[in-house]
Amino acid sequence: MLLPFSVSAVDRGSRARSGLITTAHGAVRTPAFMAVGTRATVTGLDPADLLAVGAQVLLANTYHLLLRPGPELFRRVGGIHAFMGWSGPVLTDSGGYQIFSLAADRTLSERGAHFKSYVDQRVHLLSPERSIEIQSAIGADIMMVLDECVDSRSDEAMTRAAMERTHRWALRSLAARTNPAQALFAIVQGGVHPTLRRESAAFLTAHPFDGFALGGLAVGDTRAEREDITQASTEWLPSARPRYLMGVGTPPDLLHAMLAGIDMFDCVLPTHLAWQGTAFTSTGRVKVSRGSCAAADVPLDLSCTCATCQRFTRAYLHHLFKCSEPLGPRLLSIHNLHHYLTLMAEARAAIEAGSYAAYAAAKLEAIDRHEHSGRRFKLGGVAVE
Amino acid sequence: MLLPFSVSAVDRGSRARSGLITTAHGAVRTPAFMAVGTRATVTGLDPADLLAVGAQVLLANTYHLLLRPGPELFRRVGGIHAFMGWSGPVLTDSGGYQIFSLAADRTLSERGAHFKSYVDQRVHLLSPERSIEIQSAIGADIMMVLDECVDSRSDEAMTRAAMERTHRWALRSLAARTNPAQALFAIVQGGVHPTLRRESAAFLTAHPFDGFALGGLAVGDTRAEREDITQASTEWLPSARPRYLMGVGTPPDLLHAMLAGIDMFDCVLPTHLAWQGTAFTSTGRVKVSRGSCAAADVPLDLSCTCATCQRFTRAYLHHLFKCSEPLGPRLLSIHNLHHYLTLMAEARAAIEAGSYAAYAAAKLEAIDRHEHSGRRFKLGGVAVE
Repeated sequence: MLLPFSVSAVDRGSRARSGLITTAHGAVRTPAFMAVGTRATVTGLDPADLLAVGAQVLLANTYHLLLRPGPELFRRVGGIHAFMGWSGPVLTDSGGYQIFSLAADRTLSERGAHFKSYVDQRVHLLSPERSIEIQSAIGADIMMVLDECVDSRSDEAMTRAAMERTHRWALRSLAARTNPAQALFAIVQGGVHPTLRRESAAFLTAHPFDGFALGGLAVGDTRAEREDITQASTEWLPSARPRYLMGVGTPPDLLHAMLAGIDMFDCVLPTHLAWQGTAFTSTGRVKVSRGSCAAADVPLDLSCTCATCQRFTRAYLHHLFKCSEPLGPRLLSIHNLHHYLTLMAEARAAIEAGSYAAYAAAKLEAIDRHEHSGRRFKLGGVAVE
Repeated sequence: MLLPFSVSAVDRGSRARSGLITTAHGAVRTPAFMAVGTRATVTGLDPADLLAVGAQVLLANTYHLLLRPGPELFRRVGGIHAFMGWSGPVLTDSGGYQIFSLAADRTLSERGAHFKSYVDQRVHLLSPERSIEIQSAIGADIMMVLDECVDSRSDEAMTRAAMERTHRWALRSLAARTNPAQALFAIVQGGVHPTLRRESAAFLTAHPFDGFALGGLAVGDTRAEREDITQASTEWLPSARPRYLMGVGTPPDLLHAMLAGIDMFDCVLPTHLAWQGTAFTSTGRVKVSRGSCAAADVPLDLSCTCATCQRFTRAYLHHLFKCSEPLGPRLLSIHNLHHYLTLMAEARAAIEAGSYAAYAAAKLEAIDRHEHSGRRFKLGGVAVE
C-alpha cells in the first residue's frame, strides 16, 4: 500500500510544492520539518510543548530505541505514541546513519551491522529485516529502509558499493514489511556523484516505496555540492511521492531545498543549538550567554509569537544560562523549534500563493544580511549582536 | 506597616490554623508551602508550571541574586516579578543561611559577612542594611532579616552569642527598611535550647515585625529536637502574625509542624529529589530509575491529578532517567511539587473542617506504613517498591 500523498500547490517560479501526507495518526502538511526525538523525547520538551510550537511529525531513531527501552516494551505498551504521549505521526530512522556515525562500534557485512550496545555491552544485529521488525514494534507511521551511508569524500568505487548494498537492503526491507499501514521510504545514495544519484533514484523508484529520501548528505560535502545533488535528485524522483532530505539543515538549507521541491526535513540544529545557548531570530543568531544580553530587556525576537518571546527577556535567558539552569535551554528549544516551524508555515503559505521563489529569495537575502553583516544594530533601544 | 494577616480557622484538636496573608502581589492562603526558586527560577520549571501545580509563593535568595544577576538589574527591570515572569508573591531569604552554609567563603563580624563571589571573585559585604537594600531592589513581597545561624550541636554560649547578634541585626534590618509595602519577618534563633528560643521570641516579638520565622533548625538537630522546639516556639509567637518554619522538610515534618501552628514552609526536597529521580507518592517514595519501574505501565501515583501522572507512565519516566533526558527531572519536579501543594491544600481543608488533628494522624500513619513497611505490593497489576 502506498502512502496517500497529494500535492495541492506548486509555485510558479520553482519546483517548490505543498501537499498532504496522510497517516494513521493524522495528516502532515508539507513541506514539513520534523522535530528530532531520537530517544522518544525531544530533549527537555513534552508533547504539549511540541503541539504549542506547531510540530506535526516527530523523528525517532530505531538504533537508539532498540538499545533502550527495546522493542519488547513498545510491543507491550502498543507503540511509541502511547509510550511518550505523542498522538501525531512518527517517522523512524532505520539505524543506517548510526552504521556510518558509530563505525568504531560495529562490524558490517552484507547481512547487516553488528553493534555492541552502549547500554549493556550485548551485541545486536541490525539487518534490514531486523530494522523493519523494530520499526514495526515502535509503531512508526513512516519507516525508513536500512541503508549504508559513506563519507561524501569517499571515492566513486566505494560510494557505488555502498549504494548497491543500499539497493539490495531496500528490497529486503520492502519484503520484510508486514503491516501495510506503516509507510516505507527508500533512501537514495550515491554521494556527490550525479551519475550514481541518478542510477540510485532510477533503481529505487522502480519499486513500490511510499516515499524517497536523499541520504548521505551533510556528511563531508560542501553546501554547493549538497544543493546541486538535491536540485538534480528531485527531478529523478516521482512527484506523486514525498521527497525527504535527511539531516539537513540551517534555515537557508531548507529554503534552497524547498525551492528544489523537497517535502520533508529533519535536523537537530534548532534543539542542539538551544542547549548550547544559541537562538535563531529574524535578525540573525543570538548567543544568549554573551554580555550584550545581560541587560537586554527585550525578547529574543520582537517579531516572534512563541511562548518564550511572549514571556521572557534576553536578560532573563542570559541569567538562566549563566546559572546553568535547565529552564534556559528548554525556553530556547521552544523558541528555536517555533522559529523553524514558522519558517515552514510561511513557506507553505507562499507556495499556496504561488510566490515561493520570491519569498525564498527575500528570506535568504535577509538571513545573509543579518548573519554576515558583522554590524551591531539597535533593537528596542538596546544594542544586540 | 504590618502585613495584613487573618486567621480564618483553627482546628479543635491542635494549634493548626488556616489564614490569609495579603501582599501587593496577591493573597496567600496559609498554611502555605513555598516553591524554592533560589536563583529566580524553580529548577526546570517556568511560572506557568508553578501556577498549574498550585504554587502560591516563591522563595528566592538574596545572596545568590546579589552575585547574579545583581541588584542593579532588578532595579532597572522593576524587580523579580517582571524579570522571571512570576506575578504572585515572592519571599526572599536574607543570605543568613549562606553565612552558615558557606562558612569557608566568608569572614564574619558585627558589621556583617564579607563573601568572595563565586562569579567574579569580588568581595561583597552582606550586612543587615545591605541585605534589606538588595531585597528592596529584588522587590520581595516579604523580606527576611539577616541572621546568624549556628550548628544545632554548638554549645549554649556560642548559640547565645549568635542569637544576640541576630537580635541586633534584626533591629538594624527594621531600621533599614524604606518601603513599607515590603513586609519584614524576624528570625528566632536559639538552637535546640528552649530557654534561648523563648528569650529570642520574647525579644523579637517586642518589635513591629510582620511575621516570625524559626531559623536554625534542620542544621544538625534530630527530628525530635526540631519538633519540640517548633511545638514550644509557636506558643511564644503571636497568633496574629504568620509563623514560618525555615527549610523544613519532609511531608511528615510539615504535618507535625502544622499541628503545632506553623503557617509557612519552604524546602528544596520536592525539586531536589525530583532531579535525583525520586518521586513522592501516596504509597511511598518511588525511585524511578529502579528496574521495577522499567515495565510499569502505570502512572507514578494512581490517585494523583498532576500533569505528569495524567500523561506519563513510570516506564516512560524510567526510560527518560536511564537516558539522562532532562524531561525526566522536569516531569518529576512537577509531580513532587504538586504532591506537596496537594498535601497543603488537604491540610487547609481539614483545618477549615475542624478535623486537622485526625487528618494529620491518619496521613502520618499512612506515610509511616508505606515508607517503613519494606513490603512490595501490587499497583495496577504491576509490582512496585
